[in-house]
Amino acid sequence: MNAEIIAIGSELLTPFRQDTNSLYLTKRLNDLGVEVVFKTIVGDTREHLVQAASLALSRADIVLFMGGLGPTEDDLTREAVAEALGLELRRDPNIVAAIEHRFAARGWKMPANNAKQGDVLAGATVLPNANGTAPGQWISGKYEGREKFILLLPGPPHELKALFEEQCFERLRSKLPPRFIVTRELKITGLGESHCDARVAPIYQRFPDVQTTILAAAGEIQLHLKSSAASQAAAQQKVDALVSQIEDELGDCVFSDNGDSMEQIVGYYLEMRNTTLAVAESCTGGLIAERITSVSGSSRYFLGGAIVYSNPLKTELAGVPAELIEKHGAVSREVAAALAEGIRRRSGSSLGLAVTGIAGPTGGTPEKPVGLVFHGLASDRSTEVVERRFPGDRKRIRWFASQQALDMVRRSLL
Amino acid sequence: MNAEIIAIGSELLTPFRQDTNSLYLTKRLNDLGVEVVFKTIVGDTREHLVQAASLALSRADIVLFMGGLGPTEDDLTREAVAEALGLELRRDPNIVAAIEHRFAARGWKMPANNAKQGDVLAGATVLPNANGTAPGQWISGKYEGREKFILLLPGPPHELKALFEEQCFERLRSKLPPRFIVTRELKITGLGESHCDARVAPIYQRFPDVQTTILAAAGEIQLHLKSSAASQAAAQQKVDALVSQIEDELGDCVFSDNGDSMEQIVGYYLEMRNTTLAVAESCTGGLIAERITSVSGSSRYFLGGAIVYSNPLKTELAGVPAELIEKHGAVSREVAAALAEGIRRRSGSSLGLAVTGIAGPTGGTPEKPVGLVFHGLASDRSTEVVERRFPGDRKRIRWFASQQALDMVRRSLL
Repeated sequence: MNAEIIAIGSELLTPFRQDTNSLYLTKRLNDLGVEVVFKTIVGDTREHLVQAASLALSRADIVLFMGGLGPTEDDLTREAVAEALGLELRRDPNIVAAIEHRFAARGWKMPANNAKQGDVLAGATVLPNANGTAPGQWISGKYEGREKFILLLPGPPHELKALFEEQCFERLRSKLPPRFIVTRELKITGLGESHCDARVAPIYQRFPDVQTTILAAAGEIQLHLKSSAASQAAAQQKVDALVSQIEDELGDCVFSDNGDSMEQIVGYYLEMRNTTLAVAESCTGGLIAERITSVSGSSRYFLGGAIVYSNPLKTELAGVPAELIEKHGAVSREVAAALAEGIRRRSGSSLGLAVTGIAGPTGGTPEKPVGLVFHGLASDRSTEVVERRFPGDRKRIRWFASQQALDMVRRSLL
Repeated sequence: MNAEIIAIGSELLTPFRQDTNSLYLTKRLNDLGVEVVFKTIVGDTREHLVQAASLALSRADIVLFMGGLGPTEDDLTREAVAEALGLELRRDPNIVAAIEHRFAARGWKMPANNAKQGDVLAGATVLPNANGTAPGQWISGKYEGREKFILLLPGPPHELKALFEEQCFERLRSKLPPRFIVTRELKITGLGESHCDARVAPIYQRFPDVQTTILAAAGEIQLHLKSSAASQAAAQQKVDALVSQIEDELGDCVFSDNGDSMEQIVGYYLEMRNTTLAVAESCTGGLIAERITSVSGSSRYFLGGAIVYSNPLKTELAGVPAELIEKHGAVSREVAAALAEGIRRRSGSSLGLAVTGIAGPTGGTPEKPVGLVFHGLASDRSTEVVERRFPGDRKRIRWFASQQALDMVRRSLL
């Protein structure tokens, strides 16, 4: 079974807005064993809409239309799908009454326009929308001799998700051949993409039934694994066996086997080990602390720290001797260590983490080029310093540096 | 003139990846007076690719293919476009030599696969790619009796942008009827979307020649204005007149009239006024500092500050008396003021900025609910505190709080 997703709305053809619903829908369709083979984005033009609808009906088993169900003249999805399918539209007085009621509950009279939201394709099942005025519609039937499923869904993400979860997912599942799909996501750091692939490809190639996708992001590699089988247990067993072999190969480079972020994983370890952390950030400018505190409950293990952007603040807030900065420069192994030790002492944390480097695009020299970053981690036993040279622009360098810093904390707690 | 953008790659049909290049391309095509009428996303399947290419050629004047120019068996764009256009592919030895040279420069031998990146459509102009091995291609000619422009572009965003800017934009402009398009972007804060629209709609409705798009984001509203005319001066004059009237209406709620971000604007003002800033962040956890330091050159006006997540660090790093926290609670008007004054004193900055609040989802009480945030700004003359209650989840509340804090700095420097 395959599907095409059609996102409707002229705003999705501007430089300012993008369809994001299709990522969610793709995930849920994949969960049912359905692959998405085309995505089409089309504006509020009837001729274009009819063309896109006819084409999708001719090439996909399941066609999902998103948007264009509102009350304005621009909302043409119902009319276009009716034309493409050769079906009549009939106004359902119950839907119109429900919309009138919705307006009345706020003390308003329903504008005349909204009545068109009651237009239903002949033979369609109406899918009530608890979060908006536009109901969805479900049609199944033969088209050009093949069984098709056609869904009309509202465009606003919270309406679409609630409606799909409550009224479409199980309905679709009941019509499709039973398939049990299990997915897992491994996250890896400390390896380049090609190096990682060279080590894991011989493993996942032994699992032809598990679909493996490798994606590289700044500072991490994601391995998405998906298996389908006749039973849940069989699918789970296959994926788990592959995960286990990859983890054996890559060891502690795998930081997550359930899709958790680096900052969540660091939080788990800190809490589990009853350890507290404080940071002193120069070139990352607060990014490390921001990532750690984006996790709810981080106050249980994160005390805070200092953003030591200027040299005097390195002394004032983290106790780094001015002479040390004078002698070695702010971007140095020595200052990274002193920052980590200083913020640990000043905050009373178990671990002190520090970063100092050159994020660019200016400020680099031949000896200390843009991308050079020193990371320090101080504990009651020792202080570790790691020197790295990151590629890319200011944003990427800062992100790489934050990832490396968090990974040092993780490895120290393994 | 209209265009269709075709994004190619099976990874763009997964839940994990999305085409983003099309936003950039749409912007640049709009700058040439070209509207995008369809976007199609298709996987690495030859039959689907040929179908998508044929359809696009039949309905759009300009067709842009992105991706599928790599060296692997999955990279089929060249072959599919050749089939759709009925053109031969010819291997260009100069391209192959250039790719071999690129590998040799790193001490590697070119894998045999890469030779196919030298396949060129008969009659195409090759567009060298300074950032990757896959060159682009440009073809123009009659298709079904109409003049068409066909571009094959690499998928990685940095390769695509550089290649389009350097080799496609002017080439396209020279082929298209002259149109002068001027765009401007106003950014507004401190007003809700409907309230803002109610005030500006009567103004922009008097400018039917200027296309106005309102978009709401967390803590700001964007007004995108676009005008086209027979001369640059005429287009500019129309947009500028509308900008001027909107600025008169909204006053200092307009923080940018050229699309700059809040952190850039705050940076301009700080530098222009020869003023320095330090921050003490509790619930925002480093987000304000991270935003400020994301701007290159921010070390000229930003000294740093403290992330005072725990109460002892509010005392240790920002000098807030423990009794004050004990008496009023960490989330209070008094502590916000003391944090702002304390970090200003400690850092020697002209301005001290502080935020303390409850980002949730836990930690709220009936008196101090999730979303309650106090913002403090201390200068040599006074300390201002603003209390706000922000809606939404942890991420939105933190973003709103950072936006409000930065806006206080901006307003104090007007």
